[in-house]
Amino acid sequence: MAQALVLEERGVLSLREIALDEALGPDDVRIAIHTVGICGSDVHYYTHGAIGPFVVREPMVLGHEAAGTITEIGSAVTDLRVGDRVCMEPGIPDPHSRATRIGHYNIDPAVRFWATPPVHGCLTPSIVHPAAYTFKLPDQVSFAEGAMVEPLAVGVHACVKARLQPGDVCLVTGAGPIGIMTALAALASGASRVFISDYSAPKLAIAGAYPNIVPINLGEGSPAAMIGAYCGAGWGVDVTFEASGFEGAYQDALDCTRPGGRLVLVGMPPKKVAFDIVAAQAKELTIETIFRYAHVYDRAIALIASGSIDLKPLVSASFPFQEGVAAFERAAEGRPDDVKIQITL
Amino acid sequence: MAQALVLEERGVLSLREIALDEALGPDDVRIAIHTVGICGSDVHYYTHGAIGPFVVREPMVLGHEAAGTITEIGSAVTDLRVGDRVCMEPGIPDPHSRATRIGHYNIDPAVRFWATPPVHGCLTPSIVHPAAYTFKLPDQVSFAEGAMVEPLAVGVHACVKARLQPGDVCLVTGAGPIGIMTALAALASGASRVFISDYSAPKLAIAGAYPNIVPINLGEGSPAAMIGAYCGAGWGVDVTFEASGFEGAYQDALDCTRPGGRLVLVGMPPKKVAFDIVAAQAKELTIETIFRYAHVYDRAIALIASGSIDLKPLVSASFPFQEGVAAFERAAEGRPDDVKIQITL
Amino acid sequence: MAQALVLEERGVLSLREIALDEALGPDDVRIAIHTVGICGSDVHYYTHGAIGPFVVREPMVLGHEAAGTITEIGSAVTDLRVGDRVCMEPGIPDPHSRATRIGHYNIDPAVRFWATPPVHGCLTPSIVHPAAYTFKLPDQVSFAEGAMVEPLAVGVHACVKARLQPGDVCLVTGAGPIGIMTALAALASGASRVFISDYSAPKLAIAGAYPNIVPINLGEGSPAAMIGAYCGAGWGVDVTFEASGFEGAYQDALDCTRPGGRLVLVGMPPKKVAFDIVAAQAKELTIETIFRYAHVYDRAIALIASGSIDLKPLVSASFPFQEGVAAFERAAEGRPDDVKIQITL
Amino acid sequence: MAQALVLEERGVLSLREIALDEALGPDDVRIAIHTVGICGSDVHYYTHGAIGPFVVREPMVLGHEAAGTITEIGSAVTDLRVGDRVCMEPGIPDPHSRATRIGHYNIDPAVRFWATPPVHGCLTPSIVHPAAYTFKLPDQVSFAEGAMVEPLAVGVHACVKARLQPGDVCLVTGAGPIGIMTALAALASGASRVFISDYSAPKLAIAGAYPNIVPINLGEGSPAAMIGAYCGAGWGVDVTFEASGFEGAYQDALDCTRPGGRLVLVGMPPKKVAFDIVAAQAKELTIETIFRYAHVYDRAIALIASGSIDLKPLVSASFPFQEGVAAFERAAEGRPDDVKIQITL
Repeated sequence: MAQALVLEERGVLSLREIALDEALGPDDVRIAIHTVGICGSDVHYYTHGAIGPFVVREPMVLGHEAAGTITEIGSAVTDLRVGDRVCMEPGIPDPHSRATRIGHYNIDPAVRFWATPPVHGCLTPSIVHPAAYTFKLPDQVSFAEGAMVEPLAVGVHACVKARLQPGDVCLVTGAGPIGIMTALAALASGASRVFISDYSAPKLAIAGAYPNIVPINLGEGSPAAMIGAYCGAGWGVDVTFEASGFEGAYQDALDCTRPGGRLVLVGMPPKKVAFDIVAAQAKELTIETIFRYAHVYDRAIALIASGSIDLKPLVSASFPFQEGVAAFERAAEGRPDDVKIQITL
Repeated sequence: MAQALVLEERGVLSLREIALDEALGPDDVRIAIHTVGICGSDVHYYTHGAIGPFVVREPMVLGHEAAGTITEIGSAVTDLRVGDRVCMEPGIPDPHSRATRIGHYNIDPAVRFWATPPVHGCLTPSIVHPAAYTFKLPDQVSFAEGAMVEPLAVGVHACVKARLQPGDVCLVTGAGPIGIMTALAALASGASRVFISDYSAPKLAIAGAYPNIVPINLGEGSPAAMIGAYCGAGWGVDVTFEASGFEGAYQDALDCTRPGGRLVLVGMPPKKVAFDIVAAQAKELTIETIFRYAHVYDRAIALIASGSIDLKPLVSASFPFQEGVAAFERAAEGRPDDVKIQITL
Repeated sequence: MAQALVLEERGVLSLREIALDEALGPDDVRIAIHTVGICGSDVHYYTHGAIGPFVVREPMVLGHEAAGTITEIGSAVTDLRVGDRVCMEPGIPDPHSRATRIGHYNIDPAVRFWATPPVHGCLTPSIVHPAAYTFKLPDQVSFAEGAMVEPLAVGVHACVKARLQPGDVCLVTGAGPIGIMTALAALASGASRVFISDYSAPKLAIAGAYPNIVPINLGEGSPAAMIGAYCGAGWGVDVTFEASGFEGAYQDALDCTRPGGRLVLVGMPPKKVAFDIVAAQAKELTIETIFRYAHVYDRAIALIASGSIDLKPLVSASFPFQEGVAAFERAAEGRPDDVKIQITL
Repeated sequence: MAQALVLEERGVLSLREIALDEALGPDDVRIAIHTVGICGSDVHYYTHGAIGPFVVREPMVLGHEAAGTITEIGSAVTDLRVGDRVCMEPGIPDPHSRATRIGHYNIDPAVRFWATPPVHGCLTPSIVHPAAYTFKLPDQVSFAEGAMVEPLAVGVHACVKARLQPGDVCLVTGAGPIGIMTALAALASGASRVFISDYSAPKLAIAGAYPNIVPINLGEGSPAAMIGAYCGAGWGVDVTFEASGFEGAYQDALDCTRPGGRLVLVGMPPKKVAFDIVAAQAKELTIETIFRYAHVYDRAIALIASGSIDLKPLVSASFPFQEGVAAFERAAEGRPDDVKIQITL
């Protein structure tokens, strides 16, 4: 039995004892959790009780963005030690699946992912995790940053799939947490400038405070005009990352990307999108779709450690574990200038 | 003045004298046209007078799928000779445009393309063309085959963009001329098997007569079932080529392509398509869009010459130039077992 | 204890009883071996007792190119059944190694590979193997062909790494078994023509009997001249596969590959090669190096089954298991018109 | 007639009047030269009179790393204006060549390159150049930086060919000007850390003053040990850029690059290199060779303008045009802490 932040059912959270599997296998490590970030999906399970086909039918521990310290290692673990500060990939694939074997472990249908029903999350003081999905944090990377590797990994993975080239000019549509972190990942991956579009002035202000991120307020005009002025008539950005899921963003992406450019679909729209395929063909765009991430945790950590990506301005508030329910209520408010709410244990 | 097959206005064709530019520049060749294929776009201009933004406002010579014999060469031409049997790329890009310089000459907005208003086509006994876009035919490639390099080039280009790997299993949605030629290009590019789906039994019969092309009649059941049986549960084809433009085909593509696979959009749908982006993301598909072709004419010719692609069964009927209007009427009939109608001069 | 063809020490073979591990794990299958091909490495261990750092210090069963029939399956095996005709990848990697996890299981240093000291090979009537590295043969693929999937896989892997494009013209330097199979793999992967160079007329005759393979006898002149005549002055083949390991072949490769082309190093030279880096730079060649293969067995089998690759002419002789020592003596003779010697059990 | 810095013959420089072609074509611009950097090749022509097959047989103006201001534009130039501050690509390819048309204009054998015999360079107050190879400098990029885009472009091109991924760890062998600029390009292209190896402590000190560049003094030990300590046993850097041309560096590259990594050959060794192909194969390395650059000037300028690459510490000394001969004498000294000597006009 362990203390945990439990979603009992839609709209009902409690901090209470719950039975969790704590057996340590030979390839596992035990981790004392230090910091857990609240993701939009955690909030959505709290407020709606489900995301698509994933329905909360039993009480479920929330949380999947975590960092902590190793307290015990399995008998076969050689590359991690007790006392190592670490962060963890929340998804554990089947190593024998067809997708995993060719390197796409993120799209293995058998993956077990923290806080995705019926799998418990990590908002509890101690968890057991495979060493293979546990990554050491360098000294200069804080627990708060370590707990943000998970959402940053989405942006880094998007940049890997985008095959960014040095000096690329990019557009990110949507200035939510994933949009901002994708913009930061793009700059760290070789982009020379990233435009970011949104209707929310506070979100754009946070993004625009970073060098080489240029906000575009959608309430004030078309992004195509601003991008045309920078990139030249009849041209556009090399890569657009769609990170909002809003229908209008797909047309902006088609309008603003250059001939031969790439469009990376990160945001998940709530329903089918009326997509102008002929417009994409006229520019012969390559469209990459993204599902979580694979093979990028070490890359994301290295870019934080090198100073290429500064996540510290994105931690909006931090709550102690005992106020975890209040942390969720704050996250559920959706304040426009909140980027990431974290809980420390 | 030269004899030509002229689209006077929507629905009105005539074979008559017309003034054409016949000046031979230093980098040009003059070609006696031997065979011209009729493309769906030629027929569409004939029956509708326009394709999207391209409207026939003045009489226009039709035809852009051509082969012939060189009768004169410009002063700077070194790699072609009088008497060479050749076929020609119908689009001439601006060599100084931004798109052309990075290798995407097909998406240069300044491209001049035969039989696309207001540019005349090639259904006339003699034309002048840049040597750089004129390709020598080996002895074993007939004029009829040479005149089919243009549509085949679309399929070969789709295979280049698909980055086909040896042994790939593919699906082509749509068994029209482009669909069949894309299937043939895929087999010649390393595919081990190509499924092809359509509602038309006669079209499927023509496609299915080739080895390793497996027809799927959409009237008889879902392609996902047939493909699942071959590729294994939860898996699918490595690459789907959408070659119909019909809305239902996009869902078939999402259902039938394997995790991590590629979807190549060749067909041009008449309007926006309601596209299930989340379904594409769940498999992390890469989507390539195609606009005509670039750098593949020599590749297509080499694959015909090697015997890897046999186009001869696809010539359904051939009309002499004097019966060119009848040829268009036959093409406009849209007989289900007609693949390619050609005109010989 | 099982009957096996054992290399006792350098130069000494015997067919005798030997103790082998026959325990069947839950993810394993048991296979009745039907056909085993003799590889150059088997012969080299026989004649030299070692290959580089791999030294035969204890009696070792030879053989790693095998096909057979499943006689028993482990409790967790779901995609193979008793009676399935199969062939097997001879290397078993550590699924948790860093190389395996990013998809390069072939270069995992911990790989256990049949008939590489101290690991026993498969020249014995029954072996146990992981189901994940056991591949079902379609009905139209014979055991003899199934036992040649292993060397063919080298060629298919080389073609994957070469990123062959449809219509590519290729050169293979060296017409040994791997050279010929690489040439066949290239044609099946989209090449329109493959030149193959060697000093041995009998080997070239076997290769040249295939359509679109053009032999170049190195004793009769430079390959650059012949290739220049076909590809045009100042140009060359799109891809060269070096499959001989002979020093002169590297200069031929540099001379014959086109600007921007690719050079795939398959052959393993016995010592360092004096390589003209500036010549490679002047053409900005991409050079891929190859070590065995990964993820291509199913691809190779599919291309045999589709008829794209015909291996049957390459089986030079077949010996019954009881004459296995004679088979090795024949293989050690190195007759110029022997491609593959097989043993049937 | 114009004043120019002329290499009369090996070892003899003069600043004198010389007849130069000053005709302005419709696609050209005239540029008042402001700053010219001295390249190792300029010095080599001065001290040796030749580089490989390129022999100075007539007096030749030196210099090819230049920035200046447009003073006149040709009649067809639309995207540049009088007064624009610019830098220029020194090589002008034939737009109709086979290599240029597929995008590899840098390896077009017909390229005309400044200060490569018999083509004059740009150390003269005014030159005429094609607008297509003339690039506008943003306000925040100085003439001194603009004149360093040329050598930086080599490094950026190397990074494009390396297909760097975010967070990659790199090794650059050789801390000369190209080595340092390649290291800076790698960091700006997504690398999280770059090791740089050399025997020269002063060169390493200059490189090591940049964040995330880690110097390795070859006189003090093997780079493999230091890299193994950082990357883990049996692993290595993702990408090695060889930028020295020294024979020992190739073995360091093979020892230090991880399985499946990439090796980019930038340095041009004076003779053939004894290369361990089997060692490269055991790691299945991809080797890219580099010749100058293509399509990267705008990318390099954007990365200077964004602050991602700071070239200012690399300008070691600047001489007025009238002391141009003294500038060459200083450059020919080869002081270990000189990176770039420039001349201002």
